[in-house]
Amino acid sequence: MDIKKLITEINQKQSFLCVGLDTDIERLPHHMPKTTESILDFNKAIIEATKDKAVSYKINTAFYEQYGADGWSIMEESLNAIPQNCFTIADAKRGDIGNTGKMYAKAFLQNMDFDSITVSPYMGRDSVEPFMEYGKVVIVLGLTSNPGSQDFQHLLVGEEKLYQDVIRKVAQWGTEENLMFVVGATQAERLTDIRSIVPNHFLLVPGVGKQGGSLADVATYGKNSHTGLLVNSSRGIIYASSNEDFAEAAGLEASKLQSEMASYL
Amino acid sequence: MDIKKLITEINQKQSFLCVGLDTDIERLPHHMPKTTESILDFNKAIIEATKDKAVSYKINTAFYEQYGADGWSIMEESLNAIPQNCFTIADAKRGDIGNTGKMYAKAFLQNMDFDSITVSPYMGRDSVEPFMEYGKVVIVLGLTSNPGSQDFQHLLVGEEKLYQDVIRKVAQWGTEENLMFVVGATQAERLTDIRSIVPNHFLLVPGVGKQGGSLADVATYGKNSHTGLLVNSSRGIIYASSNEDFAEAAGLEASKLQSEMASYL
Repeated sequence: MDIKKLITEINQKQSFLCVGLDTDIERLPHHMPKTTESILDFNKAIIEATKDKAVSYKINTAFYEQYGADGWSIMEESLNAIPQNCFTIADAKRGDIGNTGKMYAKAFLQNMDFDSITVSPYMGRDSVEPFMEYGKVVIVLGLTSNPGSQDFQHLLVGEEKLYQDVIRKVAQWGTEENLMFVVGATQAERLTDIRSIVPNHFLLVPGVGKQGGSLADVATYGKNSHTGLLVNSSRGIIYASSNEDFAEAAGLEASKLQSEMASYL
Repeated sequence: MDIKKLITEINQKQSFLCVGLDTDIERLPHHMPKTTESILDFNKAIIEATKDKAVSYKINTAFYEQYGADGWSIMEESLNAIPQNCFTIADAKRGDIGNTGKMYAKAFLQNMDFDSITVSPYMGRDSVEPFMEYGKVVIVLGLTSNPGSQDFQHLLVGEEKLYQDVIRKVAQWGTEENLMFVVGATQAERLTDIRSIVPNHFLLVPGVGKQGGSLADVATYGKNSHTGLLVNSSRGIIYASSNEDFAEAAGLEASKLQSEMASYL
């Protein structure tokens, strides 16, 4: 699905919630065997329990790659279990030039049919553009939610910080229809200046919940006229319970976030 | 294998050649069927034909991921076909924080037993350190060989450029035994100032050959007392012939590069 359809879904569901399927075999509910098949069963149950409250699902590719070919299959099957009216994100943080970039893009945006993929900007324009050739959405790292974002993203280049320069330049390489930016929720106070650079783009915001970001702050500083936000929650939802009621508990957490989101819309 | 062993191999083989297994199904020799199995057969033949001239092999993960679970298996089997006395590189350009970073690291450095992995520095220290926990080598993007490197890597931060700041900071996060940097051969004139920042680290240098970088320049400006260079060639070697003599032709190209390298040692 594309960004126009995403906006419709946000309005209908009164939610800008993205559920992160960062499924760790070690954190599966106690009653499930620690197998890769269980990861798929778990994901399917989480999706079923949250699909009316979430408009998007983000699959963190690292969690699947660690199981090699098996993990790759489970990632594909998890993607296929996500309803068509939800926006799907391959959180892969790839980035490479020319032919190599195209192959990563093909893997996720064509062969697997994700709606979008996260990309690192360090290598510049010719490492971002190959991902734009598939008619999908490229989500470029702008300002991340981790302490290490201080190391380079906050460096002063001329009169602005590197992350501001990154967002300003990258925005010129695409459109509001094929580009989004990652902005960590722990940096919500920065959303005001980011919105001055990209008033209309969607922002993918991780870091709400366990990482300490405030949903209220993100909505206050980051929302635009068409919402323009996807706020991700992973652990807070998928590990809400480690018992047989895990899916029900995930659904309740998603519902709480959706209710709060509705109050900001 | 570790960096000490790599130095021994460089001295014994009189070579600092890394062969890039960027194997594209569309560029397989005419007589081979266009199947993923052929990619593995091709890689095995290339490895066999070049293993006495090369000290390292670099597997570009994008080329394998595009075939999903099948491609992942072929990547593993290609890795297993590389002799133990060659330094193996997962050219994956990953980078993520905490648990996610660890899972990428586990996928490549533990489950698949690559000797090293390439990592993007944009997210900072806590996105590089998780890759250091497996007793292997982390190869961080410093200055890349593509035109897009101008977009951010050459930005002035204080009195130096971003790539210099990146290399300087990252070098403090690890040691000469567990860190290398990627420096594109098309930027050979920059190797002098990079060597002033990291005189003793190994540099992985792509971009010689088809991309236009000069091996002589790289050796002149980049070599240190223990060589400290791995120069990668991919297409120039693996696609030296598209006929049945492809492996022989690859061996000849590798041999030419090794002879030239020996003259610089």
